[in-house]
Amino acid sequence: MFKANTEFDIIGMGEVMLRLSPPAKEKISQCETFEKTIGGSELNVVSGASMLGVRSAIITKIPQNKIGHFVRNKIRYGNVSDDYIVYDQSADARLGVYYYESGAYPRKSTVIYDRARSSMCTLSLDELPSDIYEKTKVFHISSITLAIDKNLRETALEMIKRFHKAGALISFDVNYRSALWSEEEAREVIQSILKYVDFLFVSEETSRRMLQREGTLEEIMQGYVKDYGCKLVATTRREVISPMRHNFNSKIFYGGKFYEEKPYNNIEVIDRIGSGDAYLAGVLYGLIKTGDITSALEIGNATSAVKNTVVGDMSASSIDEILSVIKSHKATGRQDEMVR
Amino acid sequence: MFKANTEFDIIGMGEVMLRLSPPAKEKISQCETFEKTIGGSELNVVSGASMLGVRSAIITKIPQNKIGHFVRNKIRYGNVSDDYIVYDQSADARLGVYYYESGAYPRKSTVIYDRARSSMCTLSLDELPSDIYEKTKVFHISSITLAIDKNLRETALEMIKRFHKAGALISFDVNYRSALWSEEEAREVIQSILKYVDFLFVSEETSRRMLQREGTLEEIMQGYVKDYGCKLVATTRREVISPMRHNFNSKIFYGGKFYEEKPYNNIEVIDRIGSGDAYLAGVLYGLIKTGDITSALEIGNATSAVKNTVVGDMSASSIDEILSVIKSHKATGRQDEMVR
Amino acid sequence: MFKANTEFDIIGMGEVMLRLSPPAKEKISQCETFEKTIGGSELNVVSGASMLGVRSAIITKIPQNKIGHFVRNKIRYGNVSDDYIVYDQSADARLGVYYYESGAYPRKSTVIYDRARSSMCTLSLDELPSDIYEKTKVFHISSITLAIDKNLRETALEMIKRFHKAGALISFDVNYRSALWSEEEAREVIQSILKYVDFLFVSEETSRRMLQREGTLEEIMQGYVKDYGCKLVATTRREVISPMRHNFNSKIFYGGKFYEEKPYNNIEVIDRIGSGDAYLAGVLYGLIKTGDITSALEIGNATSAVKNTVVGDMSASSIDEILSVIKSHKATGRQDEMVR
Amino acid sequence: MFKANTEFDIIGMGEVMLRLSPPAKEKISQCETFEKTIGGSELNVVSGASMLGVRSAIITKIPQNKIGHFVRNKIRYGNVSDDYIVYDQSADARLGVYYYESGAYPRKSTVIYDRARSSMCTLSLDELPSDIYEKTKVFHISSITLAIDKNLRETALEMIKRFHKAGALISFDVNYRSALWSEEEAREVIQSILKYVDFLFVSEETSRRMLQREGTLEEIMQGYVKDYGCKLVATTRREVISPMRHNFNSKIFYGGKFYEEKPYNNIEVIDRIGSGDAYLAGVLYGLIKTGDITSALEIGNATSAVKNTVVGDMSASSIDEILSVIKSHKATGRQDEMVR
Amino acid sequence: MFKANTEFDIIGMGEVMLRLSPPAKEKISQCETFEKTIGGSELNVVSGASMLGVRSAIITKIPQNKIGHFVRNKIRYGNVSDDYIVYDQSADARLGVYYYESGAYPRKSTVIYDRARSSMCTLSLDELPSDIYEKTKVFHISSITLAIDKNLRETALEMIKRFHKAGALISFDVNYRSALWSEEEAREVIQSILKYVDFLFVSEETSRRMLQREGTLEEIMQGYVKDYGCKLVATTRREVISPMRHNFNSKIFYGGKFYEEKPYNNIEVIDRIGSGDAYLAGVLYGLIKTGDITSALEIGNATSAVKNTVVGDMSASSIDEILSVIKSHKATGRQDEMVR
Amino acid sequence: MFKANTEFDIIGMGEVMLRLSPPAKEKISQCETFEKTIGGSELNVVSGASMLGVRSAIITKIPQNKIGHFVRNKIRYGNVSDDYIVYDQSADARLGVYYYESGAYPRKSTVIYDRARSSMCTLSLDELPSDIYEKTKVFHISSITLAIDKNLRETALEMIKRFHKAGALISFDVNYRSALWSEEEAREVIQSILKYVDFLFVSEETSRRMLQREGTLEEIMQGYVKDYGCKLVATTRREVISPMRHNFNSKIFYGGKFYEEKPYNNIEVIDRIGSGDAYLAGVLYGLIKTGDITSALEIGNATSAVKNTVVGDMSASSIDEILSVIKSHKATGRQDEMVR
Repeated sequence: MFKANTEFDIIGMGEVMLRLSPPAKEKISQCETFEKTIGGSELNVVSGASMLGVRSAIITKIPQNKIGHFVRNKIRYGNVSDDYIVYDQSADARLGVYYYESGAYPRKSTVIYDRARSSMCTLSLDELPSDIYEKTKVFHISSITLAIDKNLRETALEMIKRFHKAGALISFDVNYRSALWSEEEAREVIQSILKYVDFLFVSEETSRRMLQREGTLEEIMQGYVKDYGCKLVATTRREVISPMRHNFNSKIFYGGKFYEEKPYNNIEVIDRIGSGDAYLAGVLYGLIKTGDITSALEIGNATSAVKNTVVGDMSASSIDEILSVIKSHKATGRQDEMVR
Repeated sequence: MFKANTEFDIIGMGEVMLRLSPPAKEKISQCETFEKTIGGSELNVVSGASMLGVRSAIITKIPQNKIGHFVRNKIRYGNVSDDYIVYDQSADARLGVYYYESGAYPRKSTVIYDRARSSMCTLSLDELPSDIYEKTKVFHISSITLAIDKNLRETALEMIKRFHKAGALISFDVNYRSALWSEEEAREVIQSILKYVDFLFVSEETSRRMLQREGTLEEIMQGYVKDYGCKLVATTRREVISPMRHNFNSKIFYGGKFYEEKPYNNIEVIDRIGSGDAYLAGVLYGLIKTGDITSALEIGNATSAVKNTVVGDMSASSIDEILSVIKSHKATGRQDEMVR
Repeated sequence: MFKANTEFDIIGMGEVMLRLSPPAKEKISQCETFEKTIGGSELNVVSGASMLGVRSAIITKIPQNKIGHFVRNKIRYGNVSDDYIVYDQSADARLGVYYYESGAYPRKSTVIYDRARSSMCTLSLDELPSDIYEKTKVFHISSITLAIDKNLRETALEMIKRFHKAGALISFDVNYRSALWSEEEAREVIQSILKYVDFLFVSEETSRRMLQREGTLEEIMQGYVKDYGCKLVATTRREVISPMRHNFNSKIFYGGKFYEEKPYNNIEVIDRIGSGDAYLAGVLYGLIKTGDITSALEIGNATSAVKNTVVGDMSASSIDEILSVIKSHKATGRQDEMVR
Repeated sequence: MFKANTEFDIIGMGEVMLRLSPPAKEKISQCETFEKTIGGSELNVVSGASMLGVRSAIITKIPQNKIGHFVRNKIRYGNVSDDYIVYDQSADARLGVYYYESGAYPRKSTVIYDRARSSMCTLSLDELPSDIYEKTKVFHISSITLAIDKNLRETALEMIKRFHKAGALISFDVNYRSALWSEEEAREVIQSILKYVDFLFVSEETSRRMLQREGTLEEIMQGYVKDYGCKLVATTRREVISPMRHNFNSKIFYGGKFYEEKPYNNIEVIDRIGSGDAYLAGVLYGLIKTGDITSALEIGNATSAVKNTVVGDMSASSIDEILSVIKSHKATGRQDEMVR
Repeated sequence: MFKANTEFDIIGMGEVMLRLSPPAKEKISQCETFEKTIGGSELNVVSGASMLGVRSAIITKIPQNKIGHFVRNKIRYGNVSDDYIVYDQSADARLGVYYYESGAYPRKSTVIYDRARSSMCTLSLDELPSDIYEKTKVFHISSITLAIDKNLRETALEMIKRFHKAGALISFDVNYRSALWSEEEAREVIQSILKYVDFLFVSEETSRRMLQREGTLEEIMQGYVKDYGCKLVATTRREVISPMRHNFNSKIFYGGKFYEEKPYNNIEVIDRIGSGDAYLAGVLYGLIKTGDITSALEIGNATSAVKNTVVGDMSASSIDEILSVIKSHKATGRQDEMVR
Repeated sequence: MFKANTEFDIIGMGEVMLRLSPPAKEKISQCETFEKTIGGSELNVVSGASMLGVRSAIITKIPQNKIGHFVRNKIRYGNVSDDYIVYDQSADARLGVYYYESGAYPRKSTVIYDRARSSMCTLSLDELPSDIYEKTKVFHISSITLAIDKNLRETALEMIKRFHKAGALISFDVNYRSALWSEEEAREVIQSILKYVDFLFVSEETSRRMLQREGTLEEIMQGYVKDYGCKLVATTRREVISPMRHNFNSKIFYGGKFYEEKPYNNIEVIDRIGSGDAYLAGVLYGLIKTGDITSALEIGNATSAVKNTVVGDMSASSIDEILSVIKSHKATGRQDEMVR
């Protein structure tokens, strides 16, 4: 299915933000320190996959200063190549910031964005090497990158076409954010690129509301394949019992078949941010390394479920850890309580 | 209902203590650091109400030293005026301290008080400006202030009378603490002031045991109105599933009617201290700002429920946060998991 | 039952390790700090019992350097005598280390050991005073000490015999660890010493698999008494609902009778390590101080249940705390939510 | 000298930023947490003065969200009134951020600003009550507020005129920042307002370079009085031995006389940010409360020197602390090492 | 010189307080956490000596609650026996508290005491075993214990006599604190016990002012021997360059000879509290273990100098560490920078 | 001078250890947490150089577990390639550990190693790709790698030869550690490889004592060129005023000329570990990127000096930061105190 002998397995493109969050369950309005890390939907995906074992890179643009160096170091820490980071040396260079407060019932978790006019918005194609399109099996992007800035959208759309033309498979996450653009604007843009998309990640709710798809969930998933030629359609289902307890499962449609397993219930949520991205990380890893849809689904589910138990946007699981979780998930009877 | 054009909406009177608690779930006998904040039943009430949006002040007495300055700063941080803080410059000046250890089943939470002979006990009326009684719509006090010291009790009783005479409504929280005085002593003192009380907060258990009221809960609540002329009687009900999981609801009797809503169940408790005070903060805010009993009850319940999820004695919720919690509480069907 | 007028109630013998664990729910592969404490099965037992109120000592060997001094200080902190600590002054002196990562469903807790060739392995009998065998009512050891090193095993076996001969009762915890030795090797060694054992702590699973005992649990427990002359056989049962929620109970066979009480369910687990050792601490304390099996069982269960709520290997409960937990556990009807 | 019977002693106007700094001596590019507080030149001045004992308020504009509530709480904590905080409810609302890394020789301290297009830039006069100009003895502003945004500059210039007209004395700090505007642009704007300025704070270097004043330092100081009618001119001198060791002194020209005292040498610098603002806080407090220039200078010097030893932008000293420092500074012979 | 075959080398008697201090250089009025440890002049002495290698115990009285258990654990951690801790079970039981803020020039360090009416004040002789007086070579006490409470003073004076009578040598530290009693009251009490004192620790300033001794320092020291029969008189000299930099040396008079060595200059002070007590710890250790005055002086000086570099009241040095510091102190020429 | 078109500029080979150190100035024997990072002489060199701007990799062997993943992530974070990390999957796999306590005068810093039998010792050539020798301009190693294990020594000696043969220049740091091997053993091994060494880093003291070189420092440096054909000889000089204050300078001999600049005096030392390695990082970067010896020396000195101010083994400086430090170091007259 995939292009052979590429330097990278996945290249993602997207904004990387500084993430600032109060320790434990403190409030933004009260805390005296912030835990400081980075996040961004596409980075989370490629880093999560790299931690599992593929090779990946991120296309992004960040300030050329100490904050930017922090981001660069953390991207590398996430096992992602920094080859395609563009450094913004302008006086206006800024890194987008988001503040995240983790909730406890009945206090919901909260996110405040301060990302307008970040360096990423000024990224242009000529800041990247011209041979980049040949370098990867998969190009991954989410609709967030299409939404945050008009110029960036043009850049991103052109990149999708170039990667597609160069033989990379296109992975696209329709994680619609109503704060960034209207349903109408999003629908028009997204419909225009679905014909390039090989791996489509979209929730049932977004399919129905923003993309105005109808029928059963299965019919909707089949519809993307029929209408746009997507190879694989994946949809996840999260049930939020409380901010600290979730259920999670997913369904994949591929090659005319539906794939599913029993849900992870009563996940003990430490940090829910990025668990959706971790699902994609697991599925893409599984597709690339095993080529088996059942494995990809299981790895995706487990990587997502485990991500909820880890602080920060980015998955930190090795494939060993994930396989052990899958084994326990499928096991019946008494199990070891600890890994010794 | 309320006096017009006052500088403050609520003035509270009570001891403010240094609160020292181990981080997270550590034990007092083992921890190497204490989290340091302040608390006191009446301060918690007026601060919680101020955070929601009224103007309030606290009458208290604290040492004139660096510990006292910490308290002053924190009172201001709680959006409470420091106009009526009296500073104790004597050699014996001391701030009461309490140690709080947060439990996990089957280990109960523990409180150790070291509050004897604090500066507050020496407060006298002539340390306060004579025009203070004209300055507020509501004067709030709890029975703790009547219990900790005999001289302070006399001062407090006189203040209740003066505020009442000046047209302030009297809010009284009968949070009986058996460690501070006997049921007999408490009953006598409290019965003597109920005729001044407009807003009475009392639990069913305290009504039955300490105040020896009989009948159904509804009859007990009606009894306070009939016997003492209270305008509003509120009672709360907390079910402790474990130190980390509570249910909460309340009932209000006002104008011949009972008010109630469905309980908050499975609250994910981070810090339970002050959640009762937060209920009063919400109800008083609601009465003053909306004049609507249903609103006051809903705001009280939500402010109390949310307080359980926040570290420290004092509520940190804005009215925006509380209204959003109420909206979710009443909603049916799927809701947003996060506030973005 | 016990020898009179001894200096110590219990002397344990075992390796003490440095325990390094990420704060809260962080991962070993990501965290920037380690919480640093000590642990070791036998130390946990004698320290837990001493915190409850007996006098105990530990026989162990640690490096004569700053890391060793840390261990010494912490052993003393745990109310255990340092009289029988042997200091290793050789160039090869090292303290065993273990890394512990606390899980959240579906991420399991993990332990990584780095204990090979620690100073403890070189302990020899002539490093201890010759009068040590007369000094205690109970000598406690676990099979871990028999497993980690062949020389140490010889030393330990000889000590069991000497303590037994000197009139101490032998307490033995068969906590079989498959990473340390095979079932066959363990079975042979353990069977050879059961005849010296007075208090036998063994799980049902280990009895069936490693020791190849058959029949009902009750029959197995009775079998140890019949076959080896053990005075008391205790077995615990932990049900792991998730890494953060356990159930716990135990059963004791003594004097021809079985003892049991209702389980502690839905324990809110903060740190599960050492909770098995805390059970032994409670039972041994109960036997020595009360002589009553029902009490010993209740204290054992409560000490174990509470240990789960406390960070670190070692129990930190006073007998006051434990008696209060037992009282709540047996109570019916409404209870105080907090200890004030 | 001052207007009588005003509600406030000083009203400042300026941007308040979120300050994020690595703990201790860590680097921005490496640290895992940020210490989180607020700062802003004018806020630092009015808060420092309020901590000493005057009443002050700040005119500023911040987002109406949890980050804004943090700022509001911290302003109150700094003993500054929140009466004139304007809340920005627009979708573009943002709080300026600055990152501060504290150095150690030879690594210099570093500041990175991310303040463009903050809510403060949109402040307009009609968002403030019309009676504000009557409310204060002193109006304080720095040239930073004139530099960051053209619209804000117009607002600020108009406010200077209105406060001046209403009888408030104008305090102006010419803390020129070359990153914000050119010397030419700054010179023109600042020269146009000097005729309204009563208390002028300006360094020798800025006088010579940006304002192109000539002669000795004394002649320069006298020149401002002669040319623009300033009442008091103050200039400070900081000698930076290393990032962790400074010398500090100042000179005031008032009523035809120069005032000075011996410098504070070898200040043990913990956090240098805001120590210049603390000088102004001390001088303004001294002028308002003592009316004595020698006292004002001594309090200014001591408050500034002590600020260097305290983490955060804002001075935390009470007047008691400052008087004790002054006493030691002037003392000869052996002194008590500690305050007991 | 010393009694043979005693269980302990030193028994101290004194109040143990909870010490609460802001982390690093934060202020009491601003910090959000306290570092929590224990301290007390006599405990510091006996613990410091025990860490070096003698056996010691402390006579003190503390509450029987979780705060008391913390103190007990920490005393044990300090290698001091808990055999003579008396537990106060009364409702009034309280532990004295002191708050300590560490300074940086020109901000002085500050101590605030809240120790009135602590459990220690109620200690009576019959709470101790009657054989205690036979158990030790040295009994150590400071004048603080004589000052804080009149009843406690009587108890202490009686104990001095009983220990003296039983053959223990009396070590007495005249660390006069003017906040606790007047010079006149102190002089009378102290003069009355000097005849029992064998090892006298007193500063030059206290000798001159409080005890009204005259002449050169050498004459003063000789005077104590002549007038009261003291065996050894030691006096220390601390020069405070700044809160973070001290010089230290000492002089001992014994057997008709003066002993002294070159001072420790430019000590990098992390925490100065308890460094005086550490001097005594070192001298007493030296006297007991080496019997050599030169050694005792060197160990005292080094233990005190090193204590300044360690957080907390109590010395944490092993004798190995101290001997290595002494070796460096005496060395000439190039030395190893680190201990590897 | 350097081989062209290589994938890496520098490949280092050496053990990477877990570094555990108490926070701030706490002691190993007392602290409750460890700061956790990694270090190793060769890694420090290649990471420091990569942070400045070259491309580098490290040859090392670590356990295949969560501790190993931590090391891998941190190596990547240090901008070093993980291509040549070998993962040890054996049951005996272990990571070397070292404990570091930072001193304050007169308490020296202390290092305790626990590195025996680490996974690194088992590295063999066939675990590395055969084309590795062609991949780099410079191969860097220190004598530590030759000392810790005999098998590893053989592996390392063979690698030196292979890299040399493939055209890489050999960089060698003679940082002799007497704890690891005798002077005799070291001398023999090191003398045998000097003929392969192009860049030799050796201190004057080691030259004289271990390598038994004689004459002036200049003669010694010239001698290495003459006797062994080294291209560049560098020697550093550190003067330790106290653990918190150092002076530093260096001298380079190259192409028949000596290079030197004025020393960095009164460096405010936060963490001294790795500052020697940072010197090499700077010099190697300078040689590779500028080819200018004066620049290499200046960058080396500045990178080393700055490293002392940063926590952890590894330099965190960008070339921008270093050039700014060099500029200040050379400047005369008044400079900006901060980088804004």
